[in-house]
Amino acid sequence: MIKKEIEQEAKIPLSNELTAKKSDFSNWYTQVVHVAGILDQRFEAKGENVWKGYGYKAMNNIKAIWDKLFQDAGIEEYYFPLIVPLEYAKQNDSWWKGFETEGYQVIAGEDKKVQGILRPTGEPAMYPMFSLWVRSSSDLPIRLYETVSSYRYETKHTRPLIRDREITVWHEIHTAHATRSEAEEEMELHMRLWDQMWNDLALPVFKVKKPIWECFPGAVGAVEYYSTTPNGRVMENGSVNNLGQAYAKKFNIKFTDKDGQEKYVWQLCTGNGARLLAAVFTIHGDDHGLIMPPKIAPFKAVIIPILKKGEEDIVNKKALELYEKLKTKFPIKLDSSEKSPGKKFYEWEIKGVPIRIEIGPKDIAEKSLMLVRRDTFEKIKVKEAEVDKKIESLLQDIHKNLLDKATKMLNSQLAKASSLEEIKKNINNQKISIAFWCNDEKCYDKISKVEDGVEGFGSDLNESESGKCIVCNKQTKTRLYVAKSY
Amino acid sequence: MIKKEIEQEAKIPLSNELTAKKSDFSNWYTQVVHVAGILDQRFEAKGENVWKGYGYKAMNNIKAIWDKLFQDAGIEEYYFPLIVPLEYAKQNDSWWKGFETEGYQVIAGEDKKVQGILRPTGEPAMYPMFSLWVRSSSDLPIRLYETVSSYRYETKHTRPLIRDREITVWHEIHTAHATRSEAEEEMELHMRLWDQMWNDLALPVFKVKKPIWECFPGAVGAVEYYSTTPNGRVMENGSVNNLGQAYAKKFNIKFTDKDGQEKYVWQLCTGNGARLLAAVFTIHGDDHGLIMPPKIAPFKAVIIPILKKGEEDIVNKKALELYEKLKTKFPIKLDSSEKSPGKKFYEWEIKGVPIRIEIGPKDIAEKSLMLVRRDTFEKIKVKEAEVDKKIESLLQDIHKNLLDKATKMLNSQLAKASSLEEIKKNINNQKISIAFWCNDEKCYDKISKVEDGVEGFGSDLNESESGKCIVCNKQTKTRLYVAKSY
Repeated sequence: MIKKEIEQEAKIPLSNELTAKKSDFSNWYTQVVHVAGILDQRFEAKGENVWKGYGYKAMNNIKAIWDKLFQDAGIEEYYFPLIVPLEYAKQNDSWWKGFETEGYQVIAGEDKKVQGILRPTGEPAMYPMFSLWVRSSSDLPIRLYETVSSYRYETKHTRPLIRDREITVWHEIHTAHATRSEAEEEMELHMRLWDQMWNDLALPVFKVKKPIWECFPGAVGAVEYYSTTPNGRVMENGSVNNLGQAYAKKFNIKFTDKDGQEKYVWQLCTGNGARLLAAVFTIHGDDHGLIMPPKIAPFKAVIIPILKKGEEDIVNKKALELYEKLKTKFPIKLDSSEKSPGKKFYEWEIKGVPIRIEIGPKDIAEKSLMLVRRDTFEKIKVKEAEVDKKIESLLQDIHKNLLDKATKMLNSQLAKASSLEEIKKNINNQKISIAFWCNDEKCYDKISKVEDGVEGFGSDLNESESGKCIVCNKQTKTRLYVAKSY
Repeated sequence: MIKKEIEQEAKIPLSNELTAKKSDFSNWYTQVVHVAGILDQRFEAKGENVWKGYGYKAMNNIKAIWDKLFQDAGIEEYYFPLIVPLEYAKQNDSWWKGFETEGYQVIAGEDKKVQGILRPTGEPAMYPMFSLWVRSSSDLPIRLYETVSSYRYETKHTRPLIRDREITVWHEIHTAHATRSEAEEEMELHMRLWDQMWNDLALPVFKVKKPIWECFPGAVGAVEYYSTTPNGRVMENGSVNNLGQAYAKKFNIKFTDKDGQEKYVWQLCTGNGARLLAAVFTIHGDDHGLIMPPKIAPFKAVIIPILKKGEEDIVNKKALELYEKLKTKFPIKLDSSEKSPGKKFYEWEIKGVPIRIEIGPKDIAEKSLMLVRRDTFEKIKVKEAEVDKKIESLLQDIHKNLLDKATKMLNSQLAKASSLEEIKKNINNQKISIAFWCNDEKCYDKISKVEDGVEGFGSDLNESESGKCIVCNKQTKTRLYVAKSY
């Protein structure tokens, strides 16, 4: 039943014909994720998908980037159990209210007793432990993260990697500090780490400060990141939350400070996961399929032998030789299957391998190779002896080109508005609108509810310009992002 | 309540005094896992523990070894969903009978409907997909693995990393082949991969062929690995299962062969996980704590400054300089906390860091450093300029010494027996007994039930010797391993 739904609704093609990306983005996305061998969506449970080898490798390459970023910054990887006892979950009453129905509960034993809730977020398993670990100021700071799957009984339409019931490869950083200013310094650090991450993925995003009424109850503030879709919508892509002491008070995380006083800790949490890969696909892909940014591409290049009757052995031997040489330098694939070269080109384009290496009898005679860039389809003839260096420089070029192109796209999607009408117009033109706003909640509501499906996403961190709130005319340096969400 | 149980039953010490390993192994194990910062067992749910940073790093270093081993052998990493629909689970009726009560079920939504079962093993989520993926012989072989947590509602006494309800960092390889002989070749490959793994972990194990009545129903055969404990018990540590076509028939995994015939695939599965780390602790640890084999040690060495009044700055500066230099070569720790050197020695010994580097004013004056091996406590004075090379060679020596020592221990624990009485005597002397056996199930039962708690674990793969079955006197080349299980 679910299999049929996916095949019909998502129109997963029996042939590998992709729909055009720009004109029918949603179908393009669901199809390409399937056809490129990222996920298999036919697992018969809503919002749960099978990660296939190629997709999981790309995701793990992203994970390797964040592992290094975090660990180099001294943030240690931990693991907290999946099944969270109800006593833990209920320690934060407002949290529990949300997840009592949105969460999965686990039953076991002859009497089918409820054993707990599947983690929908990290806190309820983590913070009771923090409370055991923190006694004095010398136990602080705590700076750790975990990469896990989280579970939410999503009743809305699910979308692979974007809105799932099983949220796979999700990381959360959680920290605890003795003072508010230490927590704020930590927040600055995390924003620098995120900038590095966006650069590595060649993903330009916009970041906003959330208005306080949209932060976790009791929190001090939050920064959120948004990537965009070709049709001018936005997708939340990670957040850094300054939790203040709100959770510390719920979970009783306190310490005796050097002055002998008992104090609650100051906390931070950040998180993101497979949506990063979704953004990579969304932003860089084209009508031919995915384009993998070089730093996360499972294979940096694919070698395709161009066979000619009677010379198969020579070409195959040379292709294998080249493969053996290059694989010591970067992850590489030799496609020696029996398909035609045209079919292979087509399939590896869908998978988005950054460089194709063609090798045929003519190339061998000339001691050269033909390289083809996935991002521009440019063909580059290169001497065989220089192929490894050329690939390295091409990978850098491709990275730069993807980032430049995507930055231009993002900039072209941002449009200033000086009235509610203009916001509507921008959004109908598939733009993300930016408008001056006075920081007042009432004006916020008017701006962000200007039309059905439109939302305010928070304000620009940069407050160098000034202007008048488009609702009340008050002078302000704050600019609000307004768009439709994907 | 659970917290108290752990503190009392496992006698987790408030001071860091360890019990002696040999005389009270079970308590030593539970304590050292806690005190060395591997796990926190105070999470309030039976059989679920928190992995702390140091322990998780060691486990991930083991995972990195298997990732490389498997991927270099062309086995791709996949991920299959956690919540397995009941329709999938019930496809294998005999499997379902076992896990209907031993499994965790998941409920959600207003009506608390059962959504599925938490994966207790990989097959029920994987094999329905295999059935979709396999159509013709060109879709074969399938060779993949996943590293996940699995869940069993264990009613017996749990033991961290050895018997848990949440079985973390567990990998399973599953393959499907067109012919029985291909599956057998694959089995040979996996046994070679495992030999490499045991070598990297400096873990000698014994491997046995399981008698067919102890294999999965319908399977062709299985090889299992066993590590030992200091008190002469054995612990299952991974298996390679030749499943034959048993699961293919349950899950309808078939293909049209080149001869036009529809055939079921031949399958293999193997698995192991955190028990590898448990075996590392069990086999290499001593009364001072853990000893980390160099290839999985989170830090290869720890630098401890030996401060002298008035010369603190010189020593701290030099220690930092040394740290900056060495950290580019291997993962290393500088302990610049305010504890006394003695306290630091003690704590890093418990954690089992292979090499301690002491640096004090005298060493600085002499341009030398003092290295101390964790495995032998040997002190080695080394010129500062040669420290990185010396550490590298020491790490190799330590690896070799650990493997040699453990191999001797294993050999000393194996004892031949030529009668049932002798088996009993061996086991009472904390030995693992080996006895000739005719391959008949009735004789097997007599041997393996010679005493309460004693079990047969399968037969030696090496059949070069011959002798008489100790029950029926029939001539045989098969020797059975008999012991108590941990």
